[in-house]
Amino acid sequence: MAALGPGSGSDAAAPTTTIAAIADEVGVSVATVSKVLNGRADVAPDTRTKVEESLERHQYRRRGRKKPSGAGQIDVVFHEFDSGWSMEIIRGVEAVTEPAGVGLLLSQLGGKHHPPAHWLEAVLARRPLGVLFVLCSPTQAQQEQLRRQDIPFAVVDTDSATTASVPTVGSNNWNGGLLATRHLLELGHRRIAIISGPEDVLCSRARLAGFRAAHEEAGIEVDPELIRYGTFYVDAGFEHGMSLLDRPDRPTAVFAGSDMQAMGVLRAARQLGIDVPSGLSVIGYDNLEVAAWTDPPLTTVDQPLRDMAGTATHMVLDLARGEKPRTSRIDLVTELVVRESTAPAMNTNH
Amino acid sequence: MAALGPGSGSDAAAPTTTIAAIADEVGVSVATVSKVLNGRADVAPDTRTKVEESLERHQYRRRGRKKPSGAGQIDVVFHEFDSGWSMEIIRGVEAVTEPAGVGLLLSQLGGKHHPPAHWLEAVLARRPLGVLFVLCSPTQAQQEQLRRQDIPFAVVDTDSATTASVPTVGSNNWNGGLLATRHLLELGHRRIAIISGPEDVLCSRARLAGFRAAHEEAGIEVDPELIRYGTFYVDAGFEHGMSLLDRPDRPTAVFAGSDMQAMGVLRAARQLGIDVPSGLSVIGYDNLEVAAWTDPPLTTVDQPLRDMAGTATHMVLDLARGEKPRTSRIDLVTELVVRESTAPAMNTNH
Repeated sequence: MAALGPGSGSDAAAPTTTIAAIADEVGVSVATVSKVLNGRADVAPDTRTKVEESLERHQYRRRGRKKPSGAGQIDVVFHEFDSGWSMEIIRGVEAVTEPAGVGLLLSQLGGKHHPPAHWLEAVLARRPLGVLFVLCSPTQAQQEQLRRQDIPFAVVDTDSATTASVPTVGSNNWNGGLLATRHLLELGHRRIAIISGPEDVLCSRARLAGFRAAHEEAGIEVDPELIRYGTFYVDAGFEHGMSLLDRPDRPTAVFAGSDMQAMGVLRAARQLGIDVPSGLSVIGYDNLEVAAWTDPPLTTVDQPLRDMAGTATHMVLDLARGEKPRTSRIDLVTELVVRESTAPAMNTNH
Repeated sequence: MAALGPGSGSDAAAPTTTIAAIADEVGVSVATVSKVLNGRADVAPDTRTKVEESLERHQYRRRGRKKPSGAGQIDVVFHEFDSGWSMEIIRGVEAVTEPAGVGLLLSQLGGKHHPPAHWLEAVLARRPLGVLFVLCSPTQAQQEQLRRQDIPFAVVDTDSATTASVPTVGSNNWNGGLLATRHLLELGHRRIAIISGPEDVLCSRARLAGFRAAHEEAGIEVDPELIRYGTFYVDAGFEHGMSLLDRPDRPTAVFAGSDMQAMGVLRAARQLGIDVPSGLSVIGYDNLEVAAWTDPPLTTVDQPLRDMAGTATHMVLDLARGEKPRTSRIDLVTELVVRESTAPAMNTNH
């Protein structure tokens, strides 16, 4: 319990600090310091703050402890499970962990963007090789606690503003938005709607920026009425699709925020008797398996989910071996996959 | 290491056996007996057999050992990951494990139906609360090893012939086949094709039997040409769909083995210019999320995957607490969900 390494910092000569010294300095018991280190909830907030400040001042890091139950396992925590997307991520992680003989411990936060206290407590007690956060991220305080326990972590494509200190793997959303929109503009579309993800989600904003950039390139103004926000699920695509396509000045193309959303748009078009692609072009995002099997098969932006997950998993395992990643933020390339849901625009007066 | 419980058997009075006694009897070292107990690979096959026979004779069971790393975790092992189906199972497991504070350790066998030796070794070393096998199962020898280590297990819907001693949760496949076929017969269809799963898979055979039973009820003969076997994936549905629908005496309805297969049939119909449902009725199986969003939305047999997974997880956790399950085989009810891919048969001469 007592042994601890040097507060490392950038030079290796920092003095050794013990839990007892921290307890002394703050004026609390060793047990209290230990509780803070273990992320336990039963510590008064201001006591916790004081202890954490002292730990930070001394750059306290536990080292050399025996690995308990989490040894040989990586914790993968999802914001929430959805069908196609989550399974692609799991496959990408498993393709790296299985050959490495590393276990994959799976959990989800029921839609929350940061793990609750009890989740972190369990992780700190279990001490896994590392943690992979998918569409969620640890709070600043949780990052500190993980670092103090030498539990490395990485994030897959998050909307939260991660700092440079958090290893993150994403994909180039701006580029995805640009490619999809250019494709539609090249097909002669001039009224193009975008159904983005939630407005506060960074990847959605990046894709929308790419959408705007393509319009600027082409010297075409974007009608603000054609910019919609919604969840990434089928229902949002259906609802926005119905309201967009029911207008007299309806768009001739819709760029959806996900393949599932695009399926909702296809359904809306069907319901309104609009043929895809002759009467409406639709582009999805993600390139899930199902995108090849919709009617018509979806033109979509390929987001390399398996590669993203695999890259982030390698990051965590490298960090667990004490290797520093060469870069803390990696964005993988997105590509347009042209199938049958996009076609030249019909003659319209614009 | 040495303490061990009574070989229980049906009466509780069996004598206590030690590892040393087993070693003595077989004429090997205590270390060798220990290796066999731990499922290690480095034991000569005939030595292993002798030790296992002796362990069996004495009904040796380890008891009261401290739980190591797997404590508080359940191992969930899939035959392989596919998108919709696997995620439904994971959701069903997680809905039970999360509130129970139990970790979910995920793996897959890359298409194999029994775990390899090294997988079992890792499980025996980790000693999880229990193991849930999904579309795969332990061999007889592996079952023995798990029992000897008091690691309970259950199986979700397997095609392998599990014995009554293996707690298994499935769904009523025969009933599913019956309901789907009755629905089509009631709509006036007389030439109904079935694309089943692989011929050696038990659930496929049960559904096919239900298909035949519905025909018998109605006094209608089944054309053997209309019975097909394939994998559960989209491609198999597409290929069989093309070959079935390209015939002059083509069926007016197709009952597919999965929703993914049904999507392949829809694609084949589209390609051949056959309208669904006016020119062809299609029924899927599983009722994955995607089934509601195909064009047209699929009539399908609801297989309660989440409930099946949840029930099996409860079984494992009950067994881990030392409770005996009331029944070792549970089949949950399947129901027909009627959407828009089925309609009355067109007038045909039959």
